[in-house]
Amino acid sequence: MTSPIVSAALLVIGDEILSGRTKDKNIGYVAEYLTGLGIDLREVRVVPDVESEIVAAVNALRIRYDYLFTTGGIGPTHDDITADCVAKAFGVPIDVNPRAVEMLLQRIKRDDLNEARLRMARIPQGAELIENPISRAPGFRLGNVVVMAGVPAIMQAMLDNVVPGLVKGVPVTAETIDAAGLPEGLYAAGLGQIAAAFPALSIGSYPSYSPAGFTNQIIVRGRDLPLLKEAVSRIQRMLAGLRTDRPL
Amino acid sequence: MTSPIVSAALLVIGDEILSGRTKDKNIGYVAEYLTGLGIDLREVRVVPDVESEIVAAVNALRIRYDYLFTTGGIGPTHDDITADCVAKAFGVPIDVNPRAVEMLLQRIKRDDLNEARLRMARIPQGAELIENPISRAPGFRLGNVVVMAGVPAIMQAMLDNVVPGLVKGVPVTAETIDAAGLPEGLYAAGLGQIAAAFPALSIGSYPSYSPAGFTNQIIVRGRDLPLLKEAVSRIQRMLAGLRTDRPL
Repeated sequence: MTSPIVSAALLVIGDEILSGRTKDKNIGYVAEYLTGLGIDLREVRVVPDVESEIVAAVNALRIRYDYLFTTGGIGPTHDDITADCVAKAFGVPIDVNPRAVEMLLQRIKRDDLNEARLRMARIPQGAELIENPISRAPGFRLGNVVVMAGVPAIMQAMLDNVVPGLVKGVPVTAETIDAAGLPEGLYAAGLGQIAAAFPALSIGSYPSYSPAGFTNQIIVRGRDLPLLKEAVSRIQRMLAGLRTDRPL
Repeated sequence: MTSPIVSAALLVIGDEILSGRTKDKNIGYVAEYLTGLGIDLREVRVVPDVESEIVAAVNALRIRYDYLFTTGGIGPTHDDITADCVAKAFGVPIDVNPRAVEMLLQRIKRDDLNEARLRMARIPQGAELIENPISRAPGFRLGNVVVMAGVPAIMQAMLDNVVPGLVKGVPVTAETIDAAGLPEGLYAAGLGQIAAAFPALSIGSYPSYSPAGFTNQIIVRGRDLPLLKEAVSRIQRMLAGLRTDRPL
C-alpha cells in the first residue's frame, strides 16, 4: 500500500541514552530507513524508564502521526516497562502471550523459562508479534505503534520484519548540490528567494566543519521531480553566478 | 552554584536529522557532558525546521525543566529560524544585536556583512551572547534556554562557554557491574528485588550484542554514596550466588 504522505515519530526509551552512557545508534538508522520507504519521520523523543513519561509520550505521538516506532525497554529486567506502558496508553489488558512464549522456547529451555523471562512474552491484547531472529523475544505492533528492542542489531531485524505490513509513501528524492568554496552567507539571500519560490520543496543548507575549514552542501528534497529539477538548476545557476563574481 | 537536583532537556532542530542525511552527534555528547556537571538530562526532542514545531517544543520544555539546550538552526540561510522561534516562544522582540555584529566582524569584513550574514546577529531582546571561537556567530542564552549551533565542534565550544553561568547539581555516581556470562533473564528477579529496595537509586541492566553473543552490564546510579555501595555489594553477592549455582 502507498499513500502520498505517511508520517511517523520515533520514541527512544531508556535512562542509559539520557545519561550518555549509551550513545544512541537507532535514531539515524530509523530516520534513513523510513525516508527510503517514503515515510516522513517528523519527530523524535528520548524519555527515561519512567511509566508516566512513556505513557504520555506514546499517546502524544501515536495520535499525531500515522506511525509511532519505539525502541528499548522490552527485555526481562525490572527497568523494561515499555510493553506495560503501551498497554496502559491504549487502555488494553496485557498478559503472557502463548505465541510469544513459543518464540522464547526456540532459545530458552522450558525449565529455564522463569517469571522474569516470561515478562518478555507479556504482550498487550490485540497486538501482532514482530519476529526477532536474533534473541527470539518478539517486538509487537499495536494499532499504529511499533514496539522494538533497543539493541541495534535486533531493532534493525524487527524493522525489516514489520515493514511489509506498513503503508508506504511516495519516496522523497533528495538532490545534493556541492557549495564548496562558497560561504553560506554569500548565497543565503539567493537561496532564500529560491526556497520561497518552491514552497512544495524542502531546501536546506548544511555546513560541516573540520580543522581545514567549512564546507557547505545544499540539499533539495521533494516528491515532484520536474519541480525538483527546476529548483536544482536555479540554485546551480545562482551559485555559478557567485563563483564568477568572486574568485575562490 | 549547586542545587541538589538540576534538570534539563535538549531540543535538536533540523530536517537533516529527521531525514537521516545527517547523523546526530550532539545528543550523546550533551548527555554525557551534563551528567558530568550533575545536571540530569530528562528528555530529548528532535523537530524539523518548522516554526510552529520549534516554538511549541521550546515552550513545552523550558517550562518543564530547569534548563533547555537547543542545537541547530542559527546560521545565515532561510532554514535557520531558531533565534526567531525562541523570541516568539518568549514573546520578546528580536533584532540585530550590536555586540553580535562586533563578533561577526572578527571573521567577516564589514563590506561582506550582507543581510543574510546579519541574520546571525539577530538576537532576542534580553539574551546574553555565547561566544563562538570557531566561526564567531554567537549562540545565546535567554532565561533558562541555551541556544547553540548544530555543527558539533561549535556546539561543544559554546557549551564550554555557557557552563560557568549555569547552576550545577550534585553529580551522579555510576557504578558498572559486569554480568558477563549471566543471561539477564537469570538475574532479573533478584535485580528487581534489589531495585525495589533502593528506590533512591537508578538500577538498570544493559545487554549488548555482537555476533559472538550477548554480554550484560548492570549500572547503579545515584547521589548517595553509602547507599550506592550497599546496593552494589548486594547485586554482586546475588550474581556470585547465581554463578555458583550454574557453571558457565
